[in-house]
Parts: sequence; structure tokens; C-alpha cells
Amino acid sequence: MHVAVQAIDREIWRDGVASEGTRLIPEETPLALTYNGGTYAVMMGTPQNLEDFAVGFSLDEGIIKSVDDIKSLEVVRLDDGIELRMWLAPEDAARISERRRHIAGPTGCGLCGVESIAEAVRPAALVPQGQTFTPEQIMAAMQAIAPLQSINLQTRAVHAAAFWSPAGNIVALREDVGRHNALDKLAGALARSRTDARSGMVLLTSRVSVEMVQKTAAIGAPVMVAVSAPTALAVRTAEAAGITLIAIARQDGFEVFSHGSRVVARHATEVAHVA
Amino acid sequence: MHVAVQAIDREIWRDGVASEGTRLIPEETPLALTYNGGTYAVMMGTPQNLEDFAVGFSLDEGIIKSVDDIKSLEVVRLDDGIELRMWLAPEDAARISERRRHIAGPTGCGLCGVESIAEAVRPAALVPQGQTFTPEQIMAAMQAIAPLQSINLQTRAVHAAAFWSPAGNIVALREDVGRHNALDKLAGALARSRTDARSGMVLLTSRVSVEMVQKTAAIGAPVMVAVSAPTALAVRTAEAAGITLIAIARQDGFEVFSHGSRVVARHATEVAHVA
Repeated sequence: MHVAVQAIDREIWRDGVASEGTRLIPEETPLALTYNGGTYAVMMGTPQNLEDFAVGFSLDEGIIKSVDDIKSLEVVRLDDGIELRMWLAPEDAARISERRRHIAGPTGCGLCGVESIAEAVRPAALVPQGQTFTPEQIMAAMQAIAPLQSINLQTRAVHAAAFWSPAGNIVALREDVGRHNALDKLAGALARSRTDARSGMVLLTSRVSVEMVQKTAAIGAPVMVAVSAPTALAVRTAEAAGITLIAIARQDGFEVFSHGSRVVARHATEVAHVA
Repeated sequence: MHVAVQAIDREIWRDGVASEGTRLIPEETPLALTYNGGTYAVMMGTPQNLEDFAVGFSLDEGIIKSVDDIKSLEVVRLDDGIELRMWLAPEDAARISERRRHIAGPTGCGLCGVESIAEAVRPAALVPQGQTFTPEQIMAAMQAIAPLQSINLQTRAVHAAAFWSPAGNIVALREDVGRHNALDKLAGALARSRTDARSGMVLLTSRVSVEMVQKTAAIGAPVMVAVSAPTALAVRTAEAAGITLIAIARQDGFEVFSHGSRVVARHATEVAHVA
């Protein structure tokens, strides 16, 4: 039941004529994140790399400060979905309850724990300055991810988030039907492997909404590169967080929307030397 | 501040050389949905057609049964976002509170009011049978939406949801940075104009996740057509709800994933007659 890809029969219509065939499509599964016995959120996602997702979601939502704050993590497969069952130290769990008691009004829910507009646009953490990247590195990084998108190669229907290290390679890539989930999974993979994100780039196959910037800031990466466009709020948030937001990254180039000083062309002499 | 499209300066890198220029990108604004003074959810969305969004979200989430259940609706523009302030009859508001008290565990939040896995995969409403559509109608409907996507024509970065009536035209089209929001806005537009959705098609520029099927079922349309692929859970849900799920709708055809009996080629004689 809980596999990432399903083969499904469907009718193909071309020029008014139908034929039969099988197509591979991604699965989508309710993923319940629970802490110390309480449900925090149910997200729809691809049932793969679920430990990464649980850890990354917990970090990106600010529920934990470190992967070590999770005392135990169990993936419990149910009929209708999957529970990611986490236990925190009592004081950490109390902080969740405390945070959730600050609900405005009688009903108070929201976007995965965001109870107010103010929290929805909460300032992203500041990332370090210093590191620069060449256009060639950025282009090469984006070109490196397609062959690694194993679910997308089958289905052409899922997003990926990847991390490029200055050693020049992709150190992790995670996929999901949801772009937010893919980035949460990447955050978890980096945290679990104790990868320092401060000198690399987060790579995204998707558009950039404000939450993608907030998650990148939580990861601590100074640069994010996306295939599609950012929203205006995402640009303002990246500007405030000190993140270099690169988007519209295509075969022929890319566009830089904030903190462009981290993108530096190689010197002419250097280029000549390499050539 | 709360406009749908922003012009933003950015650097364009081509062949290792940077130039300056302005690009139009979509705005993204926190939209707080409140009922009788309590916040139900904060969604990130495009600040346009907000009355449609408020009504459609309320219908699609099952908070109201009819547009008439909203006694007043006020769009309140704040510094950081927009509040969609709705008042319901006391008994309807009590139902929200009651529903939200059935939270499992001490913290209970979730995906916009979905407190458990069971509710995340809640069965979609059954749509009526009977109506059929020709491949020519489906292709023409999808081709008709591009010129109507006014924000997307500027930004190439937002989704659309539209409704095609059997009279052969697009009766409503709504856009948003979020595909769920676009469909909620469409639902609200149809409800506010008292459009009967039972004989038309919902058209989507996006992928089809399970929530898109649930919203289409709430709208009551028998057919949904999307540019991109569905998830496996979306297909199972459409099958169960009696909805014809058509996806991968491109220039050269489309694919039918459930209830294909509603798609019927014109008879040869009829084609000859038309030709």
C-alpha cells in the first residue's frame, strides 16, 4: 500500500480515439506527525524517506532545536496512512503545548501550527555571509539533479529538493509530491548526517513561496536556487534573512532576486587558464 | 501593498555575465479566515478575488452548506496580511467549535482543520451521473483558459482553476499562487453566482492531489481536467466519488484515470456532418 509509485491503468485519447495503457503515478499518503502522543499535523506526502521528513519538519517548524531532541522516532504504518510517532523530553513537549495555547479566538487552527498572520510571516533566521559562488557552479549544480530524481524519472510528477556542497557534488536529494515536504525531507537528511549547510546551496525544482525561504533559513544555507519563479513575499523574506535567492534557473542562465553579491563571475584570467 | 503582481529588480545571468532588469512576480499574502471572531486558518495566497476565496474555502472545508450561511463577510486589510472576517449564525459557529473539540491528543492541529488521518481521506461527496463530453469539447475547454489567465500572462508563476459550462464557454476563472486556493476561489465564484456545477467541467492548470478531488466533489462537478498528473490517492478518491478524472491534458490529447464512460467520441456520421 505505502509505496512511492503506483502503476495505474488509464485511457489515452489522441485525435478523438481512445486506447488503453498503464502509467506510473506518485502515491500520496496522509502522514500524521505526533509528539508525545498528540497529533501536531497531518500532511499529504510521498511515503519515502519518512524519518528524514519527521526530523526535518520538526526542525523547520521550530519544534526541536537539534535532531538529538527527538528521543525516539517510530514509523507506524496504518491502514489509511502513516504515523510518524516522536517522543521528546517532557520540557520540549510542554513547549509545544504552551505555544499552542496562545491561540487567538475560540477555534484557532492554521497552517501547520501557524496561528496568526504575524507568525505566518515570522522573520527567517539570518544566514552567514562570506561564501561566493560562480555562475558555472550554479548551472552545474542544477544540471546535476535531474538524473538523481528517481521518482520523477518514473512519474514526471514530483518535486525535488537537493543540497550542493562546495566540494562540487550533490550530497542529498529528496523527492515528494509536495515541494514543502521535499524540502523538509532534505532538512532532515542534512541534520541526520550532521552536514553543515552553511557553505552550500539548496536546490529546488519548484517555485519559491515564503515558506521555502523560511525552511532554507532554518537549514542555514546561504543560497537557494529554484527552477521556477519566486513570490514577492519570498523575495522580501530572503532579503531580510540574508539569503541569496536565485530562480528561473534554466538551461541558458538564471536570475538573482536578493543578495546578489554571493554570485561572482570568475576572473577573465582564471577563465582563460581553465580554457 | 496588497496587489496581485509586483515589479521587482533582479540580476539576469547569461553565459557568466550579469545584467539588470525588472521582472513581474506574483504577490503572496497571509490570508486569515476568521469566523465569529476566531481564527480558523491562515493561508498564503494571491490577494485577489478574496470574497470568492472566503466563500469557496468555507464551502470546500464543510464549514458552511450554502453561501447564505455567511451572514457577513468583510475583507480587512492589515499591515502584514488580510483578514477575511466572516460571521455565521450562532448554531453554525458552534458546529465549528464542536468539530474542533474532537481533537485527538493534547495539541491537535493539522492540515486546515483536518485533525486526523481519517478526516484527511474523508470520502468525497458523490457527483451525479449522466452527462457525457466529447474529446473535442475537452480539448477546446483547456485551450480556452490560457488567454484568460491574466496574472499568469504577466508572471508565468500562478495557477488557475476554471469552470466550463455545457453552453461551451468558460464561465469563471480564478488565479492564485496556490492551486488549492485557486480552486477554492472558483468554488466561491460559482456559489456566489448561483452557477449549477452539475453539468460542467472543472479545469486545472496544475497537478491533481487528493484535496483537489475533494474540492471538485464539494463543487459538485462530474468532470475535472488537469494539465499535469494525478496522485494515486487522487485517482482512488475520484473513483469513489464518481468523478471523471482527466489529466495530462496537452496539445495532443489527454488521459482518463476514472469514470471514463463520460468521455464519448462523436459518432462517425456526426463528425461527417460537422465536417
